[in-house]
Amino acid sequence: MTAPTHAGPPISGTTRLYALLGDPIAQVRAPGLLNPVLARRGADAVLVPMRVAPGDVAPVVRALRQVANLHGILVTVPHKAAVLALADRVTARARLAGSVNALRREPDGAWSADTFDGDGFVRGLVEAGHDPKGLRVCVVGAGGAGSAIAVALLDAEVAELRLVDTDPGRRDELWRRLSEAYPGRVSAATGPRLADVDLAVNATPLGLRPDDPLPFPVSGLPAHAVVADIIMKPAETALLRAAGERGLAAHPGEPMLAHQIDSYLDFFDL
Amino acid sequence: MTAPTHAGPPISGTTRLYALLGDPIAQVRAPGLLNPVLARRGADAVLVPMRVAPGDVAPVVRALRQVANLHGILVTVPHKAAVLALADRVTARARLAGSVNALRREPDGAWSADTFDGDGFVRGLVEAGHDPKGLRVCVVGAGGAGSAIAVALLDAEVAELRLVDTDPGRRDELWRRLSEAYPGRVSAATGPRLADVDLAVNATPLGLRPDDPLPFPVSGLPAHAVVADIIMKPAETALLRAAGERGLAAHPGEPMLAHQIDSYLDFFDL
Repeated sequence: MTAPTHAGPPISGTTRLYALLGDPIAQVRAPGLLNPVLARRGADAVLVPMRVAPGDVAPVVRALRQVANLHGILVTVPHKAAVLALADRVTARARLAGSVNALRREPDGAWSADTFDGDGFVRGLVEAGHDPKGLRVCVVGAGGAGSAIAVALLDAEVAELRLVDTDPGRRDELWRRLSEAYPGRVSAATGPRLADVDLAVNATPLGLRPDDPLPFPVSGLPAHAVVADIIMKPAETALLRAAGERGLAAHPGEPMLAHQIDSYLDFFDL
Repeated sequence: MTAPTHAGPPISGTTRLYALLGDPIAQVRAPGLLNPVLARRGADAVLVPMRVAPGDVAPVVRALRQVANLHGILVTVPHKAAVLALADRVTARARLAGSVNALRREPDGAWSADTFDGDGFVRGLVEAGHDPKGLRVCVVGAGGAGSAIAVALLDAEVAELRLVDTDPGRRDELWRRLSEAYPGRVSAATGPRLADVDLAVNATPLGLRPDDPLPFPVSGLPAHAVVADIIMKPAETALLRAAGERGLAAHPGEPMLAHQIDSYLDFFDL
């Protein structure tokens, strides 16, 4: 059994549903974290994982919107950008990031979307003693989570943000949006320039699978640098292990999610 | 809180999903009965209710088939006939009934469907001491559950089966199929002829709402007759109360579902 030992909430015909869409899905942590909270609160609600391939996400979201007792959707890799287009309303920060990770049914029947990835990441970082204010930061991966983290780091007043992605199209599109909103603080590159950064963030999926290559080498980082990873499973990725072996501070993926659980509960009014 | 107090199974990224589709949905009992069994067995699986309007059931089922960790669908009022057409394979008894209440994903990716309503109903009836063999029976309601119950009662060797439905089209369509399979034992009428029946079954949704009229009058039934209802919520419908007040044996909806829980567990290999 790989399921957590915490009991889930009781489920009956009156239970409100929340779905978490991702692909792969086995690694997701939110159901294991959120459901015991719902059970303890006596909320008549449950979050269930749904593995949905990228080509199916639009029809699946459209269908889930027709499920009357389904009140919200969480979104993880690789759907965070695609789902933005399926919401009726999107917050400014999510539109800037080009990424959403939560949708809810509004009282008028419309679906609104927001992203809590960046906010959760920054709050986790600050709590761990790594306030990003004034730092030079390199974010590797301009996908859904990376984009949201980039926006939140700029809002948290990093001095300089370098965007790295192997896909120049999506990297430059994000760079254009962020440069307009935060002039003079954002640059973009195909490969990481790490020699003078204070914080390097892996926001790619590299590290989910045991045979993934490192998203960036830790050898070029200065001795005071912090290496952060958004991967939650395994808790210690090869990147964080390599950082630790070099004596660098390693910040895991877990706090980003832990700090989002309260945001989800607020957003869904649970 | 209307949710049951039994804890549900723990839910993580590896959990297999099962969905129960109906409209309305608040009254459904299967999640409250099945999930505690799954939790006790340590099965990494959960059944969640989904309220889906009739016009949306086809796209919703098609979308759920694309959810890779969703392995089965239960179907209740009013979708049991419509969902038959959405399965790749249908058992003979379900095709005869024109009604399915369970679909599962097969190893080859196809979806197969069966109905357990009739079997559960007859087993509950027999266990309560009302073996239908040799009886004259009137089934009121030729929808999904009524059709499946009619097939199971004929398989259980009732002497005569009268089908009643206010919709002559669907009643006669079922009558034609059943007459071919069980020649000389099936008749059809618009209103119930109850004066000489041994068992009268309500298989309509009448009784779900407090202000529903009775599906048929109990005044015309002989004193030895059994009145059965498939409505599960409320446990004592106005029909069963009226039958009891007349001194007739009243058989509630609960046993039909209770006897299906094991069938579902077998069908889904849980």
